[in-house]
Amino acid sequence: MPDILKRVDSPQDLKKLSLAEMNDLAQDIRQLLISSVAQCGGHLAANLGVVELTIALHYVFNTPQDKIIWDVGHQSYVHKILTGRKDSMSTLRQYGGMSGFPKSEESAHDAFDTGHSSTSISAAVGMALARDIKDQDYSVVAVMGDGALTGGMAYEALNHAGNEGTDITVILNDNEMSISKNVGAMSSYLNRLRTDPSYSRTKEEIESVLSKIPGIGPNIAKAAGRFKDSVKHLMVPGVWFEELGFTYIGPVNGHDLEQLTIVLNNVRTMKGPVLVHVITQKGRGYQPALNDPDLFHGIGPFDINTGKQPKKPLPSYTEIFGDYILDKAQEDSAVVAITAAMTSGTGLKRFARAYPERFFDVGICEQHAVTMAAGMAKAGLKPVVCIYSTFLQRAYDQILHDVALQNLPVIFAIDRAGLVGEDGPTHHGVFDLAYLRNIPNFTILAPGDENEFLDMLETAFTIKGPVAIRYPRGIGEGAKIHNERQILKIGKAQLINEGQDLAVLAVGRALGIAREFVNVMAGMGIQVELVNARFIKPLDQEMIISLSQRFKRLITIEDNCLEGGFGSAVLEVLADHKMECEVVRLGIPDEFIEQGRVDILFDYLDLTPEAIAETVFNNWPDLIPSQAWGLRKIGES
Amino acid sequence: MPDILKRVDSPQDLKKLSLAEMNDLAQDIRQLLISSVAQCGGHLAANLGVVELTIALHYVFNTPQDKIIWDVGHQSYVHKILTGRKDSMSTLRQYGGMSGFPKSEESAHDAFDTGHSSTSISAAVGMALARDIKDQDYSVVAVMGDGALTGGMAYEALNHAGNEGTDITVILNDNEMSISKNVGAMSSYLNRLRTDPSYSRTKEEIESVLSKIPGIGPNIAKAAGRFKDSVKHLMVPGVWFEELGFTYIGPVNGHDLEQLTIVLNNVRTMKGPVLVHVITQKGRGYQPALNDPDLFHGIGPFDINTGKQPKKPLPSYTEIFGDYILDKAQEDSAVVAITAAMTSGTGLKRFARAYPERFFDVGICEQHAVTMAAGMAKAGLKPVVCIYSTFLQRAYDQILHDVALQNLPVIFAIDRAGLVGEDGPTHHGVFDLAYLRNIPNFTILAPGDENEFLDMLETAFTIKGPVAIRYPRGIGEGAKIHNERQILKIGKAQLINEGQDLAVLAVGRALGIAREFVNVMAGMGIQVELVNARFIKPLDQEMIISLSQRFKRLITIEDNCLEGGFGSAVLEVLADHKMECEVVRLGIPDEFIEQGRVDILFDYLDLTPEAIAETVFNNWPDLIPSQAWGLRKIGES
Repeated sequence: MPDILKRVDSPQDLKKLSLAEMNDLAQDIRQLLISSVAQCGGHLAANLGVVELTIALHYVFNTPQDKIIWDVGHQSYVHKILTGRKDSMSTLRQYGGMSGFPKSEESAHDAFDTGHSSTSISAAVGMALARDIKDQDYSVVAVMGDGALTGGMAYEALNHAGNEGTDITVILNDNEMSISKNVGAMSSYLNRLRTDPSYSRTKEEIESVLSKIPGIGPNIAKAAGRFKDSVKHLMVPGVWFEELGFTYIGPVNGHDLEQLTIVLNNVRTMKGPVLVHVITQKGRGYQPALNDPDLFHGIGPFDINTGKQPKKPLPSYTEIFGDYILDKAQEDSAVVAITAAMTSGTGLKRFARAYPERFFDVGICEQHAVTMAAGMAKAGLKPVVCIYSTFLQRAYDQILHDVALQNLPVIFAIDRAGLVGEDGPTHHGVFDLAYLRNIPNFTILAPGDENEFLDMLETAFTIKGPVAIRYPRGIGEGAKIHNERQILKIGKAQLINEGQDLAVLAVGRALGIAREFVNVMAGMGIQVELVNARFIKPLDQEMIISLSQRFKRLITIEDNCLEGGFGSAVLEVLADHKMECEVVRLGIPDEFIEQGRVDILFDYLDLTPEAIAETVFNNWPDLIPSQAWGLRKIGES
Repeated sequence: MPDILKRVDSPQDLKKLSLAEMNDLAQDIRQLLISSVAQCGGHLAANLGVVELTIALHYVFNTPQDKIIWDVGHQSYVHKILTGRKDSMSTLRQYGGMSGFPKSEESAHDAFDTGHSSTSISAAVGMALARDIKDQDYSVVAVMGDGALTGGMAYEALNHAGNEGTDITVILNDNEMSISKNVGAMSSYLNRLRTDPSYSRTKEEIESVLSKIPGIGPNIAKAAGRFKDSVKHLMVPGVWFEELGFTYIGPVNGHDLEQLTIVLNNVRTMKGPVLVHVITQKGRGYQPALNDPDLFHGIGPFDINTGKQPKKPLPSYTEIFGDYILDKAQEDSAVVAITAAMTSGTGLKRFARAYPERFFDVGICEQHAVTMAAGMAKAGLKPVVCIYSTFLQRAYDQILHDVALQNLPVIFAIDRAGLVGEDGPTHHGVFDLAYLRNIPNFTILAPGDENEFLDMLETAFTIKGPVAIRYPRGIGEGAKIHNERQILKIGKAQLINEGQDLAVLAVGRALGIAREFVNVMAGMGIQVELVNARFIKPLDQEMIISLSQRFKRLITIEDNCLEGGFGSAVLEVLADHKMECEVVRLGIPDEFIEQGRVDILFDYLDLTPEAIAETVFNNWPDLIPSQAWGLRKIGES
């Protein structure tokens, strides 16, 4: 570990440093960031951008008394390094290691847990109002990127904070992009604030200009006071924020520690809501990240010298979707694609280039994305909404109220469904089957492999109503892709393997696990009938009834929460048909699942083929074969 | 029906009228509005406010080719009257009658179905972009109240529309209030636009002022062009909207038909996104509504002469909650109440008066409300979030990600849960048990009567984590309120009635139905054991297992969707414990339920005591008593 950083174990240590030392510290931190993320993967570019800002915040404010809330939170590594966790950077995002997001369990310096976008001002307002009510004295600071500012709840919070007038500071960390290049009129506005000298002139300068206007000059200023005030108000930079009740300060160079500390020291004593517009550069200090901040937003392990990542052995579901939707758009001019600031993450980069007039990145606005899609479907287009499972939670009402209620043919391509791994509990997409299947009119599918995924996409375009296809992060099963697409029969499951001893109904990624489980059991002479559910809604009732009649024992496996999930839907069918059948539901239990490699998490959850075999034997001991099998080892043999 | 209105059966008829005739028409429509709503109940004040605006819109635009999208939609009665549905006003909001909201099934003039707030700009952007892609030619108009503008997705849509630059018109119907008096900095901003002459001066006036500034006067205008442009831009009224890429027009007197038609005719030919700021008066033309627009926002049948409503026989759950929370706030200074523009609707009026510093109406901002509550809980307060079930859908992600993930003690007082009656499918709160119970860390309760409701509220304050209590619209069961509050045992159900023949597990409002069902069955000599579940999460597993063992037949009744709902949770318990038990789940089936009196809807859903008896006999014919009972008549005897 480099020199200055060695001496910094807490924000108190930081406060003893000279400006020159703090600048050296920034370089030390950058090195640690690059080496840690190269090893563990993570959000590199954003953290490289906020090194000086974070140092300045901790220099000026006193956490944990003062509260700093990191919006989204993926830019909190520097904060963690400065608050006694630099040694944990080697365990970043690993199972049992340090979270890639703020976590109050981890440190008192993490004032509020984040993960999804645009929540920080709301949380800050809540804390500031609590402080006021309890007559306490501390500062509350929300640090929000310009991308997060596109999210509607950020505006809701600004509007409310401006009205309450409570003392809070919002740091607008403007790096001219969120994850992809930023979009929206707000982005242009921030750009004007950054670059237009008339937008950034001081209040004094404006006052001086105004005093020269005939009729409202200094001599008759009083008479014209109101007009002057309002004109001045309108000419002040950042008027958009000022009109919402915030004092706008900026723009400030986010890499100039001297300027930052002076400004923040002033801001610290200001009354009411203040917004500080800080300009930073995403990826600063590491050329590969500067060259491709999009790629280095969230990245797996990479080579420090080249910035290159190891090649994936197979294409990801995301890439397969990207290929498909590109072809589909060529075939059908009514197809449009919508993303909420995840162009690259959802595989739409090439679509965006090939069909810019049919591609819509709306910003971090899942709500608007979904209702806009409803409007498009109503007007005759075929919109495909591409949003990660965990973020689609934010549009639950729009899905239900604006799409499903009108039975509109909107296709939801739900990427990152199920466990996502190292991003942890804020990002696991394990609730979608439960929160979607209670909505009438929906068709819900989950592919068991890549080829089926393509058939499901093709099938989705034939359905006259809302459709959701949920698929996991990362690579698939390596299935052969057929040349011809098959239109699936709605609500029909697929028999994968015939058996006599036990039936398994698996859905989505769980099918791969189930296939291995069948092999493990076959190795012990137990014949498992395996069915790929394909549809979560409508369910294949006939198949479920048949399985229950023939086996009286059924296992359901899903990469989704068990409360109200797929297995629960199967129980409903069985109950409604008065079928007697013992059902063991496997999936995500009623808890938030930590971070870690997906295979480790599946192991923790007893969702490996071997652990499932154990569960089966625990439930039905009569199935235990007479031979003594070393269960945990069977998979390896 | 008055004279001019008789001649208007479609927007085409309207276009033939003179200005004087249109003004007369406005008065005719007001009379029809008042008489219809006095009879059927509904949203009177908002509709009285938009009479001239709606006439002007239909005078200038040509629906159904042009699309008018009514935000929230409760102000669409005038639109319905003008588009061939005046005769249906007598069936307004009744079962089988005309909806109180826009409904494309009802008329081609209803371009997009609405019900929840702040969706119209998103839908309009979607339609406008679809029109552009399909190279069609029509206008798209969103009509949004100033209250709806507080909702974050309205900002998301403005920001995106401003960036796309597509031709859409947003009518900002500013009546200085949404449902209660409006809140937020935006509200103050609109107020300044309305009242400050310098805010509403024309671009020409500003240009003239600017030309007089030394240094940027007419002679050197070119050299200083950029500065002048930007200053002018900042001085233009409505700069907040202009910065988001909208052309701001206004304010316009929303009751001056001449001004309205001239402005809208101009707007119709303008390019890009335009926002027209129209000032209207809620309740205009009916004194009782002007006196109390809050009461007349959504109202049941009333006496036209006095504006008075018939007295309710019992206090509503809302009122009981209002009493309780007022007492609780006095007892505990950490208690705060949060509402999203529903101060009166959630029973918080007196709380707001008594504890203004602990009362927060954040506007129509469910997302911000929930995350702000999370911040408050984190900082040591005891926040109670009071939101209707259907609107809480909009905060699903915030509930899960900001409250539950950190296991924060936020209490959700979920009013209007279950079927709400005349407001229909957009407003039934029948999904909450399903969308909440998949969230870890939650405790979920539903009271069977008023006294239990109070015990549940008291219990909620003792729980160290998120709690949801869902309760129905309207009056309760008339239960005796005990003086002492009882802290309920977490996850324990309550035995109501012992029986031998059949077990019923009911939750919330369904308990009342179940009690009657028990009586009906007792009348036939069948002894039903009745249990009040009280908790949806955690469930009383012991009780469920015991019932299944003793009866082998179980009925669950809930006022919630069956897919993933309460009954589904019961099935999960039974399956997990391998209990053999036939379960008949009664509740809301997998469809959107229409409008109508709640008792009619329960009848339609076969959720009356008599219908449940029939269901029981259909399922288990051996229970049919030997005597011939006239089932449908039993309840009346």
